[in-house]
Amino acid sequence: MTKKLILIKLGGSLITQKDKPYTSNPQVIKRLALEIKKAQSNKYQYIIAHGGGSFPHISAKKYKTKLGLINKQSLKGLSLVQQDAFKINRIVNQIFTKANLNVLSFPPSSFIYSNNQKLYSIYSDPITQALRINATPLVFGDIILDKQLGFTIFSGEKILNHLASNLSQKGYQIKKIIQCGITNGVYNSKGKTIPKITPQNFSEIKKSLQGSASTDVTGGMAHKVKESLDMAQKYSNVYIINGQKKNNLYQTITSNKNLGTLISA
Amino acid sequence: MTKKLILIKLGGSLITQKDKPYTSNPQVIKRLALEIKKAQSNKYQYIIAHGGGSFPHISAKKYKTKLGLINKQSLKGLSLVQQDAFKINRIVNQIFTKANLNVLSFPPSSFIYSNNQKLYSIYSDPITQALRINATPLVFGDIILDKQLGFTIFSGEKILNHLASNLSQKGYQIKKIIQCGITNGVYNSKGKTIPKITPQNFSEIKKSLQGSASTDVTGGMAHKVKESLDMAQKYSNVYIINGQKKNNLYQTITSNKNLGTLISA
Repeated sequence: MTKKLILIKLGGSLITQKDKPYTSNPQVIKRLALEIKKAQSNKYQYIIAHGGGSFPHISAKKYKTKLGLINKQSLKGLSLVQQDAFKINRIVNQIFTKANLNVLSFPPSSFIYSNNQKLYSIYSDPITQALRINATPLVFGDIILDKQLGFTIFSGEKILNHLASNLSQKGYQIKKIIQCGITNGVYNSKGKTIPKITPQNFSEIKKSLQGSASTDVTGGMAHKVKESLDMAQKYSNVYIINGQKKNNLYQTITSNKNLGTLISA
Repeated sequence: MTKKLILIKLGGSLITQKDKPYTSNPQVIKRLALEIKKAQSNKYQYIIAHGGGSFPHISAKKYKTKLGLINKQSLKGLSLVQQDAFKINRIVNQIFTKANLNVLSFPPSSFIYSNNQKLYSIYSDPITQALRINATPLVFGDIILDKQLGFTIFSGEKILNHLASNLSQKGYQIKKIIQCGITNGVYNSKGKTIPKITPQNFSEIKKSLQGSASTDVTGGMAHKVKESLDMAQKYSNVYIINGQKKNNLYQTITSNKNLGTLISA
């Protein structure tokens, strides 16, 4: 068993349809699964995270779930957002299993607890044992019970970041982090891909970054870059690539080519 | 917030169809949800567990998942059994939410870890916070990662038993445990309901108990009674009732009437 990990995030906007709520992109999910399968080697293991896209974000926006227990409808909203987050996870899980990836789902609402939107506790015994037996943990953006707010929402990136921190402490090495979205990396204000973001040029670049164009309660591209820079500083290079382009994911797993934006410390 | 709990188990054979694999009983699930809702009071909170019935038990039997990592197909089996366990959970979760119960699902594979089929660690921060904000935790029979075997399976009863132990240590009081199945309690060798089982008469009664008639990898009635007796000795009375009879669950929640078999220490 290797203790070297590649973390892969599949964006919600990539695996679901922005304009059709509760509609996934099964062909895209299948292709990504096959690229991951094809790239598989005994040199490292994967942890895969996905976003919720047009599944949970609608209820999450309606009930303001990220803010926690704010009114009488909040609890109902919480149940619905969890349901919707699980729905897209079930789709990804089934397509991945059919592609012969032995994935196991770990819903973050069951193993992470927060306090005022910061991590309070995390439990990873089952996830590390899954890695030990060569199963692939599948996590996702989910509701998170929160000590102060009642509950909140953590994005797929945030979940990966906290898992990376926990697993690093347990002796795992994060070799590479790959974020697949629907853009050719991070765009500047003119719509051109920024090849590299570092702590040095981030403050300048930040001005041109915007939130997500779709209904994304977790903050869109600005949030994604911020989490990525944090992960790059703590663990390893983060590659932001276009998952809609065939073989981008495969190539990024198997080589160090930068096909989009490289976020590096 | 009260720290008094009623634990309810909905048997897999009650909520799914024995003769039709992967078919649930939505009317039964809905009626049970409405009985639970109707009985709701501010005196106690619920934790609800359900079995998998004809959903996960088929793959679990085929791949011998309870035994762990035994051959090259075991990992694929593990993914499939988890999928099937989640499938019936999604159905129960959705019907319960529609009945205005604010349930949150906590898949045990994410918060329990075992060693040679015994509990190794359990994480309940999100579950206790769910109780604090008045959401109803929903757990179920699931695959469990296992230190020695790779993985195994824990029944809904076993999950409830471990949760009860953990929550007791956190100051919760278990007021009552209700097991809903498809028989009028526990039958003796002549098919008559045994009104009361205690540690004193259990060894005599044990002889007449059998495993489940359907494909139940977790052990059927004999297992159910053993777990129940253990819970009765540690926490409180266990009522084994027929969940197919209207109002049995409602009456058992709201009164101390014994409508089936009472398991008491």
